Amino acid sequence: MEFTINQIAAMLGGQVQGDGNEKINMLAKIQDARKGQLAFLSNPKYEQYIYTTQASVVIVKKDFVPRKEISTNLILVDDPYIGFTSLLEEYHKMINFQKTGIEQPSYIGENSVTGNNIYRGAFSYIGSKVKIGDNVKIHPHVYIGDDVVIGSNSIIHAGVKIYSGTRIGNNCVLHSGAVLGSDGFGFAPQEDGTYKTIPQLGNVILEDNITIGANTVIDCATLFGDSTIIHQGVKLDNLIQIAHNVEIGKNTVIAAQTGVSGSTKIGDNCVLAGQVGLAGHLIIANNTSFGAQAGISKSIKDEGMKMIGSPAFDVKEYFKSYAVFKKLPDLNERLRELEKKVMSKVEQ
Amino acid sequence: MEFTINQIAAMLGGQVQGDGNEKINMLAKIQDARKGQLAFLSNPKYEQYIYTTQASVVIVKKDFVPRKEISTNLILVDDPYIGFTSLLEEYHKMINFQKTGIEQPSYIGENSVTGNNIYRGAFSYIGSKVKIGDNVKIHPHVYIGDDVVIGSNSIIHAGVKIYSGTRIGNNCVLHSGAVLGSDGFGFAPQEDGTYKTIPQLGNVILEDNITIGANTVIDCATLFGDSTIIHQGVKLDNLIQIAHNVEIGKNTVIAAQTGVSGSTKIGDNCVLAGQVGLAGHLIIANNTSFGAQAGISKSIKDEGMKMIGSPAFDVKEYFKSYAVFKKLPDLNERLRELEKKVMSKVEQ
Amino acid sequence: MEFTINQIAAMLGGQVQGDGNEKINMLAKIQDARKGQLAFLSNPKYEQYIYTTQASVVIVKKDFVPRKEISTNLILVDDPYIGFTSLLEEYHKMINFQKTGIEQPSYIGENSVTGNNIYRGAFSYIGSKVKIGDNVKIHPHVYIGDDVVIGSNSIIHAGVKIYSGTRIGNNCVLHSGAVLGSDGFGFAPQEDGTYKTIPQLGNVILEDNITIGANTVIDCATLFGDSTIIHQGVKLDNLIQIAHNVEIGKNTVIAAQTGVSGSTKIGDNCVLAGQVGLAGHLIIANNTSFGAQAGISKSIKDEGMKMIGSPAFDVKEYFKSYAVFKKLPDLNERLRELEKKVMSKVEQ
Repeated sequence: MEFTINQIAAMLGGQVQGDGNEKINMLAKIQDARKGQLAFLSNPKYEQYIYTTQASVVIVKKDFVPRKEISTNLILVDDPYIGFTSLLEEYHKMINFQKTGIEQPSYIGENSVTGNNIYRGAFSYIGSKVKIGDNVKIHPHVYIGDDVVIGSNSIIHAGVKIYSGTRIGNNCVLHSGAVLGSDGFGFAPQEDGTYKTIPQLGNVILEDNITIGANTVIDCATLFGDSTIIHQGVKLDNLIQIAHNVEIGKNTVIAAQTGVSGSTKIGDNCVLAGQVGLAGHLIIANNTSFGAQAGISKSIKDEGMKMIGSPAFDVKEYFKSYAVFKKLPDLNERLRELEKKVMSKVEQ
Repeated sequence: MEFTINQIAAMLGGQVQGDGNEKINMLAKIQDARKGQLAFLSNPKYEQYIYTTQASVVIVKKDFVPRKEISTNLILVDDPYIGFTSLLEEYHKMINFQKTGIEQPSYIGENSVTGNNIYRGAFSYIGSKVKIGDNVKIHPHVYIGDDVVIGSNSIIHAGVKIYSGTRIGNNCVLHSGAVLGSDGFGFAPQEDGTYKTIPQLGNVILEDNITIGANTVIDCATLFGDSTIIHQGVKLDNLIQIAHNVEIGKNTVIAAQTGVSGSTKIGDNCVLAGQVGLAGHLIIANNTSFGAQAGISKSIKDEGMKMIGSPAFDVKEYFKSYAVFKKLPDLNERLRELEKKVMSKVEQ
Repeated sequence: MEFTINQIAAMLGGQVQGDGNEKINMLAKIQDARKGQLAFLSNPKYEQYIYTTQASVVIVKKDFVPRKEISTNLILVDDPYIGFTSLLEEYHKMINFQKTGIEQPSYIGENSVTGNNIYRGAFSYIGSKVKIGDNVKIHPHVYIGDDVVIGSNSIIHAGVKIYSGTRIGNNCVLHSGAVLGSDGFGFAPQEDGTYKTIPQLGNVILEDNITIGANTVIDCATLFGDSTIIHQGVKLDNLIQIAHNVEIGKNTVIAAQTGVSGSTKIGDNCVLAGQVGLAGHLIIANNTSFGAQAGISKSIKDEGMKMIGSPAFDVKEYFKSYAVFKKLPDLNERLRELEKKVMSKVEQ
């Protein structure tokens, strides 16, 4: 993966000043960049670095006029920041999608079909009757059970475990150690104090454009034909627990170590901070925000609420209460003083 | 896995109305069922669906009399719900235990023995001197260290990691990504601020009928001959932390993301909600309940306590205090008003 | 691994009383030890056991004089406890470092180099251009991406996943299921409510003498050339979340299930209890302590603070406030009583 400055300028629709044939193999910050690397200058605060940078080329604004001599090449564009981030994205895609082919040993069961341009890493396991779309990247140590469906352009990182019957859409990214479709936590208490396992026969559905963080777990639904559903555009961070029959609305974002209990439905475009816990069987309205470590014990009907605390309530009210909480020993003392005064007045 | 209606009726001790030779390959809800599937009707609220269902057969109560024409076959039993759930359980067992044989490549070390009817998935690893009972299912990417013992009828899902010396009983289910026997977190502070690792030489013991959730971790005990012990019938959800030398009493149930610190002993038949944290070296009485996100810093001697909060106390008392907490700004204001009044009276 | 009593005495610089040729293959507690095992007597409280122990040899203090007949052999040393723990450590190292060689099938990519005396377990995967030092132990199912560097004497337990570009120092221990270098959780909100993935192009650096617990996750930094950095001597427990661009100072210890949000810098020699959560972009001074379940929302400038609560403040102050919190219903009642009294006085 090496491009000439001319090639990069063509991608960005920019103009080259200097040697367009020099080769670039890396992107870097202007203050750190070395020979063979590309940087950008957008914020004027960093202009000083363009006179000293070792970068082979710097993307600058079309109207940039150097105040001193510069030794680097330039690519002139409308917006250097957007230009740079576009390159970042392209580079990232290239890295993520460059692997193709089948490393050995790897395993694939009967009646499974895979699309074009896929990668199956060594020690990856694909069960029977699995359908996998184009450009899917299945890294080493991935386990895919029977009857799983995976759409196109999805990346399954090393060591992800996908139980039988799971359905995954297009453009999803699953990070290492994520588990999809493990049994829901369902046990019926018996008279003798033991628990009987309730069979977990549903599955997990991930729609399109979903990211699942490392070591996050999503349990399957309990009944046949039922699903734990993650709607399109949802982003889940690491070490999150999603219990059986949960449904998460589109474009909802959940930070690390949050847990959602069984059968709770979270609306669209919600934002959950880290280490939040939700009880089971709740319905959470669209556009709800939960602060870090919030504990949610009731459904939320009104959209746009911002809540924190355990149990959670309005975030502003919470912090007002908490401000008084910090002074409680003082408040207690003031009350005691007042009681004494009043008592002495009463006794007078 | 296909049965005739006659075969299923025989399993349930029921009577067939219709074509007993039709074949069934799936269970489903009465409103969703299709040809080849079996449903049940227990709640009269759902009776309407029996007249329109596509199911090949519906399990109904012995005394059920259709009020309209029905096109599905029937199996008449004493209790359709119990009949259906029995079939679910049988079906679940069949799914879980249907795999047998050894997929290649898989690895087994010297002097290891396995029982009858076991499954060893591709890329599974069994160390040396391991003993595995009958009907055990070892899915792909499972790692089993040296000197491990596993009883009969246990299911080890894909990617479980079991360190050397661990002992697992009969009828246990370990979900993907669970880790058993990792080092306890023991470090001795040195004078120069560094920490010296305390060797962790004990093991983990799981008795019978235990379920361990996905990505849950159970550390080994510190000393030779000591064990972290999970007693029979315990059910652990996903992403739980069980530290070194912990002991969990029989039939105790723990929800996701809860953590138990080193050397704490939890009694029998306790119920711990999600995201609970317990300090180390505690002793928790039988039948204790902890609410979600509770923080437990002291031992509990009396059985049957229900606690919440951090640090936790009686759940009813907690919610009374929390109700006042929510009004603390108001309470503070009332106190201020009262101080003014009393002050003005005193000044009079 | 079997030694004679004479050999062990030589290692400890101690003197043998009895049969120095007897063979020892295990260490145990004096009350549990059997033939072929070694125990120690340090605390006089346990002296009784030396007269009944089945141990083949007991390490005792140089000046120990038995008050009854003893049947075990003795090794006399200056400090039996230190002698015993030294043996434990040696034994632990021997166990951890005894495996060498390459089990098959295992995978190694092009242009990767490994040092002397390394172990590569079956189904381990090493990508391209990887450099691995001497005595490194790579257990089964470990995944090591491209361009990874691992120093000498590090142990990578079964199933650890290390993304491309990660750098790991000497004497590190990574437990099963740990993930290093997964994408940071970075998404830019778009006008239509969807999120655009921000490419994560940095890496993770672990310096020397670091322990990472089972199923702990450390995300890579966002930008090229940036790193999430764990400094030397840090000990991380299980199921911890370390987000992108975090930096953890040397000899800091973090207990299980704690989460650190993006770009936060934690100082040296800090102690974080379990289930603590830190917000992003904070700077935490050296020698800070956080109690269990603390929620940290602000930077901490002064060294040596001890904090708890969510949001956290001084631990002593917190517990004073919490003591009043537990009595809030009572306090509320007292205030109401006082209001009545004052009101009646005012009305008089």
